[in-house]
Amino acid sequence: MSNMSSNESEPVCKKPKIETEIEKESVEGETNVHKDLKNFSAFSLDKILYNNSNRKSVCLQGSFDGLSGTAIVLLEKTAFEDEKLKEKGAFFNEKSELKQIFQNDIYGNYECFPEYNPIKTTIIHPATDKHISKYSGNISFMVDETPELYKNIILPHIIEEQFDLSWLYNILDHKKEVERIIYEDNSESNGFVLLPDMKWDGKTIETLHILALVHTRGIKSLRDLSKDHLTLLKNIQTIGQNIIQEKYNIPASQLRVYLHYQPSFYHLHVHFTYLQFDAPGIYTERAHLLSNVISNLELLSDYYQKVSLPFVVQENSTLCKILKSKGILN
Amino acid sequence: MSNMSSNESEPVCKKPKIETEIEKESVEGETNVHKDLKNFSAFSLDKILYNNSNRKSVCLQGSFDGLSGTAIVLLEKTAFEDEKLKEKGAFFNEKSELKQIFQNDIYGNYECFPEYNPIKTTIIHPATDKHISKYSGNISFMVDETPELYKNIILPHIIEEQFDLSWLYNILDHKKEVERIIYEDNSESNGFVLLPDMKWDGKTIETLHILALVHTRGIKSLRDLSKDHLTLLKNIQTIGQNIIQEKYNIPASQLRVYLHYQPSFYHLHVHFTYLQFDAPGIYTERAHLLSNVISNLELLSDYYQKVSLPFVVQENSTLCKILKSKGILN
Repeated sequence: MSNMSSNESEPVCKKPKIETEIEKESVEGETNVHKDLKNFSAFSLDKILYNNSNRKSVCLQGSFDGLSGTAIVLLEKTAFEDEKLKEKGAFFNEKSELKQIFQNDIYGNYECFPEYNPIKTTIIHPATDKHISKYSGNISFMVDETPELYKNIILPHIIEEQFDLSWLYNILDHKKEVERIIYEDNSESNGFVLLPDMKWDGKTIETLHILALVHTRGIKSLRDLSKDHLTLLKNIQTIGQNIIQEKYNIPASQLRVYLHYQPSFYHLHVHFTYLQFDAPGIYTERAHLLSNVISNLELLSDYYQKVSLPFVVQENSTLCKILKSKGILN
Repeated sequence: MSNMSSNESEPVCKKPKIETEIEKESVEGETNVHKDLKNFSAFSLDKILYNNSNRKSVCLQGSFDGLSGTAIVLLEKTAFEDEKLKEKGAFFNEKSELKQIFQNDIYGNYECFPEYNPIKTTIIHPATDKHISKYSGNISFMVDETPELYKNIILPHIIEEQFDLSWLYNILDHKKEVERIIYEDNSESNGFVLLPDMKWDGKTIETLHILALVHTRGIKSLRDLSKDHLTLLKNIQTIGQNIIQEKYNIPASQLRVYLHYQPSFYHLHVHFTYLQFDAPGIYTERAHLLSNVISNLELLSDYYQKVSLPFVVQENSTLCKILKSKGILN
């Protein structure tokens, strides 16, 4: 009963923390594979962590010859781009070879081999055990998080884990990925950075996925929000929608704007995806629409401290083990 | 009452019947494209009927140079085959070219160009109007429903449409589908009927989908709920979960229990689906988890009269036309 087919449970390609300083040092001191990788000839597969035949994506564990450390390889076939299909001769040309499989009456089945058909690839190397467990498929459980459960178990767990956010601070501090920033509002309390989600190629409108990362530090998740954050949230909503309209020609009515609970990392961020796109993590047990979040805070400033928030936890996670040990899940 | 945005809406790649003998004759009398098709150079695109970026599939309408009649072209990227990935040198070889897009710390994004990466292709030629309408998609719009919008436009529309509920009253009155009832609580104010959703075969646990239909009449949707309905809602939650545990051996932590907004019919009902199942209509813009609904009502009795509820409307619906005519959607 694996749930690999589910969008929701699909392991999300976020950058997880690196556990300790020692571990971090060893990671940085080591040669990673990215320096001069030209093809997959040096890759040896150890294990298929998941294979999602619906999304045409796989996650693999293996290693590269001559390099120590485990590698995680995520492969995902790319969606078709409307623009490319429409452009005369770009896709439909002599190089789009067709090989007939069978034919019956007016119906024919073929294999098509176009000139350009890339596979979106993410390589994590060297990967930690956390990465492996993150990308391994497993079943999920629904947890009904009351304010008490949050205070007594979930929050202490979040603090205990001390997720490393240096990759994110690198972005906010313009130390990394500067060229990927789509828009920035520098305000300390209401500002944010807009950039493509790691899983998005940055150009295919049909799979548009943009993140707003707030500049303010210390807002972990929905649970920390109050009326005080309304200006920030409305700022993200309005500016985000405007920028996406201007830059990608997608109107607000074609956007799904939401926060995750639980989020993949505990620094407030908002997702923008194209409404016609079945993005991962848009199921009701994980995604909270920003406009509804704003409305909730307008109704009740301490809404997110008082409400029960259901969320889904993966079987192989530390949190699931904790919840099981406390008898909250069985 | 369509809910096209969900999985439900995906046009299915089935071969439809050809309507009449006359039509069939004319089809057979004509030269179709399949005789000697080597590539797509002769294809001209007229229209993209749908583009599913999740499944990486598109459906196109166009024509082939020198041939009369419309052609429908279905393209779908292929899923990864476990066997191929595992076979040494079959996928991971020198011909699996990698082009780096960006790199940050241990993470690298690439485009991979393997030796063999076919696109599953179906060509229907000549295609009839029936084929075209069958494969045409339908886009959806996000509507942010404020209490005012509900009162002034949505509610009058619901009343105006006067959705026929006789099929449902037939169930509640034991005039139809009696043998499908899984459980019944006869209480007039807090009772309900539990039965398989029409789309469920009633036995495959992996796609379990059960409905609770309340006995009380007149509760149209979430918008009508108040603290007065807490007993009813908790009753549905507790008994529904218990019955499903007993009868299908699925614990509460493996169930997604939710209401739709907008619902497909305006008589209060609750969905139970298996958590590992990507059921249609479980996206955040449509599904509201019952435990969260209960928590909201406990916080604020008139929560659902005061809150903004986003929902999704289909382009070809009457409601969409009304919203466009009023300038609420454009």
